[in-house]
Amino acid sequence: MRVGVLTGGGDCPGLNAVLRAVTRKGISVYGHEIVGFRNGWLGPIEGLTTPLTLDKVEDVLNRGGTILGSSRTNPYSVDGGVERLKSTIAEHRIDALVAIGGEDTLGVAEKLTAEGVPVVGVPKTIDNDLDATDYTFGFDTAVHIATEAIDRLRTTAESHHRALVVEVMGRHAGWIALHSGLAGGANVILVPEQEFSVDRVVDWVEQRFERQYAPIIVVAEGAIPEGGEELLAAGEKDAFGHVRLGGVGTWLADEIAHRTGKESRAVVLGHVQRGGTPTAYDRVLATRFGLHAIDSISDGDFGKMVALRGTDIVRVPLREATAALKTVPKERLAEAEVLFG
Amino acid sequence: MRVGVLTGGGDCPGLNAVLRAVTRKGISVYGHEIVGFRNGWLGPIEGLTTPLTLDKVEDVLNRGGTILGSSRTNPYSVDGGVERLKSTIAEHRIDALVAIGGEDTLGVAEKLTAEGVPVVGVPKTIDNDLDATDYTFGFDTAVHIATEAIDRLRTTAESHHRALVVEVMGRHAGWIALHSGLAGGANVILVPEQEFSVDRVVDWVEQRFERQYAPIIVVAEGAIPEGGEELLAAGEKDAFGHVRLGGVGTWLADEIAHRTGKESRAVVLGHVQRGGTPTAYDRVLATRFGLHAIDSISDGDFGKMVALRGTDIVRVPLREATAALKTVPKERLAEAEVLFG
Amino acid sequence: MRVGVLTGGGDCPGLNAVLRAVTRKGISVYGHEIVGFRNGWLGPIEGLTTPLTLDKVEDVLNRGGTILGSSRTNPYSVDGGVERLKSTIAEHRIDALVAIGGEDTLGVAEKLTAEGVPVVGVPKTIDNDLDATDYTFGFDTAVHIATEAIDRLRTTAESHHRALVVEVMGRHAGWIALHSGLAGGANVILVPEQEFSVDRVVDWVEQRFERQYAPIIVVAEGAIPEGGEELLAAGEKDAFGHVRLGGVGTWLADEIAHRTGKESRAVVLGHVQRGGTPTAYDRVLATRFGLHAIDSISDGDFGKMVALRGTDIVRVPLREATAALKTVPKERLAEAEVLFG
Amino acid sequence: MRVGVLTGGGDCPGLNAVLRAVTRKGISVYGHEIVGFRNGWLGPIEGLTTPLTLDKVEDVLNRGGTILGSSRTNPYSVDGGVERLKSTIAEHRIDALVAIGGEDTLGVAEKLTAEGVPVVGVPKTIDNDLDATDYTFGFDTAVHIATEAIDRLRTTAESHHRALVVEVMGRHAGWIALHSGLAGGANVILVPEQEFSVDRVVDWVEQRFERQYAPIIVVAEGAIPEGGEELLAAGEKDAFGHVRLGGVGTWLADEIAHRTGKESRAVVLGHVQRGGTPTAYDRVLATRFGLHAIDSISDGDFGKMVALRGTDIVRVPLREATAALKTVPKERLAEAEVLFG
Repeated sequence: MRVGVLTGGGDCPGLNAVLRAVTRKGISVYGHEIVGFRNGWLGPIEGLTTPLTLDKVEDVLNRGGTILGSSRTNPYSVDGGVERLKSTIAEHRIDALVAIGGEDTLGVAEKLTAEGVPVVGVPKTIDNDLDATDYTFGFDTAVHIATEAIDRLRTTAESHHRALVVEVMGRHAGWIALHSGLAGGANVILVPEQEFSVDRVVDWVEQRFERQYAPIIVVAEGAIPEGGEELLAAGEKDAFGHVRLGGVGTWLADEIAHRTGKESRAVVLGHVQRGGTPTAYDRVLATRFGLHAIDSISDGDFGKMVALRGTDIVRVPLREATAALKTVPKERLAEAEVLFG
Repeated sequence: MRVGVLTGGGDCPGLNAVLRAVTRKGISVYGHEIVGFRNGWLGPIEGLTTPLTLDKVEDVLNRGGTILGSSRTNPYSVDGGVERLKSTIAEHRIDALVAIGGEDTLGVAEKLTAEGVPVVGVPKTIDNDLDATDYTFGFDTAVHIATEAIDRLRTTAESHHRALVVEVMGRHAGWIALHSGLAGGANVILVPEQEFSVDRVVDWVEQRFERQYAPIIVVAEGAIPEGGEELLAAGEKDAFGHVRLGGVGTWLADEIAHRTGKESRAVVLGHVQRGGTPTAYDRVLATRFGLHAIDSISDGDFGKMVALRGTDIVRVPLREATAALKTVPKERLAEAEVLFG
Repeated sequence: MRVGVLTGGGDCPGLNAVLRAVTRKGISVYGHEIVGFRNGWLGPIEGLTTPLTLDKVEDVLNRGGTILGSSRTNPYSVDGGVERLKSTIAEHRIDALVAIGGEDTLGVAEKLTAEGVPVVGVPKTIDNDLDATDYTFGFDTAVHIATEAIDRLRTTAESHHRALVVEVMGRHAGWIALHSGLAGGANVILVPEQEFSVDRVVDWVEQRFERQYAPIIVVAEGAIPEGGEELLAAGEKDAFGHVRLGGVGTWLADEIAHRTGKESRAVVLGHVQRGGTPTAYDRVLATRFGLHAIDSISDGDFGKMVALRGTDIVRVPLREATAALKTVPKERLAEAEVLFG
Repeated sequence: MRVGVLTGGGDCPGLNAVLRAVTRKGISVYGHEIVGFRNGWLGPIEGLTTPLTLDKVEDVLNRGGTILGSSRTNPYSVDGGVERLKSTIAEHRIDALVAIGGEDTLGVAEKLTAEGVPVVGVPKTIDNDLDATDYTFGFDTAVHIATEAIDRLRTTAESHHRALVVEVMGRHAGWIALHSGLAGGANVILVPEQEFSVDRVVDWVEQRFERQYAPIIVVAEGAIPEGGEELLAAGEKDAFGHVRLGGVGTWLADEIAHRTGKESRAVVLGHVQRGGTPTAYDRVLATRFGLHAIDSISDGDFGKMVALRGTDIVRVPLREATAALKTVPKERLAEAEVLFG
């Protein structure tokens, strides 16, 4: 078989580990040829290929990013995209495709399957918000980086009796905030799943100051205060009459300073969370995903996505995988909240 | 309630995170008093206590070891041990005990439960070999440290065209070898679950050298070659007529050098794997275990152990927890083996 | 002797290592009593003391921040500050003071010396901009953290063919930008010492894209474009008509996106650079500074600051220490510039 | 010019940073061609070359080992070695050589210079024992890794009230032991420069246990007890009648256990210390060495070695560089000793 493979969407530590596993098992066990498509779905649309050999993947297991490049191109939004994709596949005699990506990439994979293009999906979301799998690779690395940052910020906060607000990734789901907040011993954790009350945040902050410790607040970038998004709107003035800068983290640090009269600072971790060498956990998970994806391809079991359930890798229909966003359940938030303050 | 807590057996990153969670939720949600017993079961035998307060656990989440100290003392092996333990518990008016430890500690917990001492267990094994839970805290940290070491050793191996044998923990189960080997891209992984053939190891090593790369062999301390343990016996002479030093790692490095004529070195990671700051993964797991253990205590649900199943924390009978060793199944070894060479 | 010690100004990894060395050598070699003053110069003004014993400093060597707390209080700016400080010193029978801090703290130390208060200074500036010493502790840690971030960002930049601007600390001196930029292989490094030409930056960025690699630009927070600070002024509109957010990093990322038509993002590392466990280098330097400071105190050699020259710790007059800012010399910038693009 | 470059001796983090700097400045500033010789002096003897281009060194700054490979081959010990080396140089029209290595490699460089081969040396020794330079790259990384290990081991030692002996690199000079011992807060540091008294070690260990803390002993692999090497001889029996295993670390742990009656364990860090990504400090130093080496080549200033003096890179005669071993002076040992116990 000739198997095509591509990586779509935002980069994520572990992508190269999937590529390595697909390539090594594909070549040495099944005798496939592995063809890399460059820059996500743009590759098969424009015919951008690069062969994946044992030597190409020799040294990539512990490297962040993706050696194939990525993009957010969607063949269904590009004029003639799907036709061009199909003709590339025909021209390169590709028998099946491994598509590694998030909701968008897998959504395309599902539609293509329905049109007869044989695809197997590998889930990728650094935010851990895909419903059909317990965890996705990249998430553990992001949590690890955010936790290291919180550890570092705590000593500064304590030395200066200061509140520190750490804004982490998580536009629609608060998994990174929840896990890094728990791991870093955050005194408040705020997630997109539940509007937060600034009054309650201020209470926890003041409780913490009363116990003579400095508070750390971890907030997901998608968290919003009660009263809605307008409070965060660009152009609003802060307590000192200045134009507010940045997102919810900066807004909240400002608000805390204003209401408590204590020094308060924000740190926005940003892109640092998604790059660089993956943790051991993510390398193992990504490697196992890759090994099982090429098994699924070789079994002719298309339209599936590999997924983690407990300690097992299973196959689920692509349709299930993209049906719902996996958000943090109320019980997990309640579980964490007893550690606040 | 007055709740006693102790940590037994070898130290493990995450123990302090359990103590913190038990103490914080115990005090702030349930209004319990938390009494720490020092040095494992020795504490309740000899009446060595220290109160656990919010301040005591303020700064321990990211610290390795255990602030309570540990020991391998078993009250059933000490003259009058159980009686002294019971009278300490009576004297200090302890209503229930949280026992954090491995097979031995939990075995004692189970027997005590049968005798009417109310205990809840928290599983702890850095080797991840307890059957009733998907993972135990400390394991991810050990794998992380071993993987970092393998990453470092690879560049040395490549620069000198040399085979490197890395001996990791795992006396009866090969989980650390399997996961760190997968994460570090080891070219051979050897575990206690399956006797290894030195001939096959040498084949993989030579294949690797033929491809112009240096081989890394990860071996669990409990792995043994076919033909049995006598090959590893102390006092045996190596290929150069010297007395062999150390365990299986050193033995195997020697053997590879002798059979392939290539340079070969062993590194024994040892205690470095079990100390220091826990990974974010382990801090989250240990924290959740602690929160659920104090819930179980407060529910009067004794004789149970908290356990991870998928992404949930559940309670299982202590009896189940210690019934069988969780070893690496054959499928997981086969899954990994396709990446060898 | 009774020796007072305080930490002033912003926190910096290594402060606790100085405190530990002063305390251990002070007590065990010289038989001094060591008295900690809390919160910088505020401590001696308000009489806030805490004894420093061997147990207090047992576990602080690898911890960021300062166990004494810090502040920016200047006794010469507080009504009656110097008198209150002197009377605290008399009341607590303090024979001499170790003052650990930057330009401001050491400036106070120098003035107090002139008024007969016996002080020895220990230099502390994370920006490495004190003239009398080759390096100060904390700097290596900040460079280490910034370099790790650059390593992580590079894989993201490459995967998305994107320019990344990393804003690091350095208000008046570009040492952190220079060293982390060299260590991280930055394609452009911009420092406060030399106004930068946006045209040249864009040239380097485009050269880099032409070679099919993604550019990383490291910019010190105090760097300014030619044409002066007004370009960075708050309220200015960006290329898309939005109010510009943040400092020079965000401004420059915007500018690059506008001029090159490529994606460009900014990351502002902020407080993460100054907290957490110090590097081994900083622990050694801070420890040696502490040991030599207590020697100087015990020799009655006041009005001095300890300093690093080559591999030696020497004593220099406090007056010299605060005379000039140590900025990055032109030769060092030229040395680095050959690696740009 | 056509400039040859090679890396000799043991691998060392930072070698690739030197190669990158030589190549980038050589090509882009001076217009040289850069020719890599493989496997140390073996390369020019056997004519093993590989061109070093901008693309080849693009991604190597943060990678350990050496992309050129290394060896301990000495052309003066190989039959006809020097003649073959000279004819390779003539054949490949090499105008000058950059030789990166330790005492042996630089010794060859010096002799070749005397015979008219134009060479510039770059010092490399992970042990930091070359006399003509303040520091060499790789040393900081080794100290960093050893310090991390000590940090981890401390929590284990404390939890089990156990003595831990950490054996680090340093056959003839104790720099790694001294710096990692200071940075890790070791309670005893033992170096090759001064025979150690086991009695004194035991005293410090017992003092430490009396203060209720666990002792960490850092020992360089080349340290020897008073009474000479015979105590360490292979085949000797330990206190329990077993044949002693391993080097001085294992020997000493045994001895401490025997004399104090306390548990005592050894950890031998070994090759982990020399591999993997270099610290920021080492990357900066190695980069600067490379930039200055190619300057020296281009100036026609041969027979020199680049060296660090304070914060400057200078050129010193190769002859000086290899004249004497730089050992730890008595004052530095005395400085550290006040922190023992």
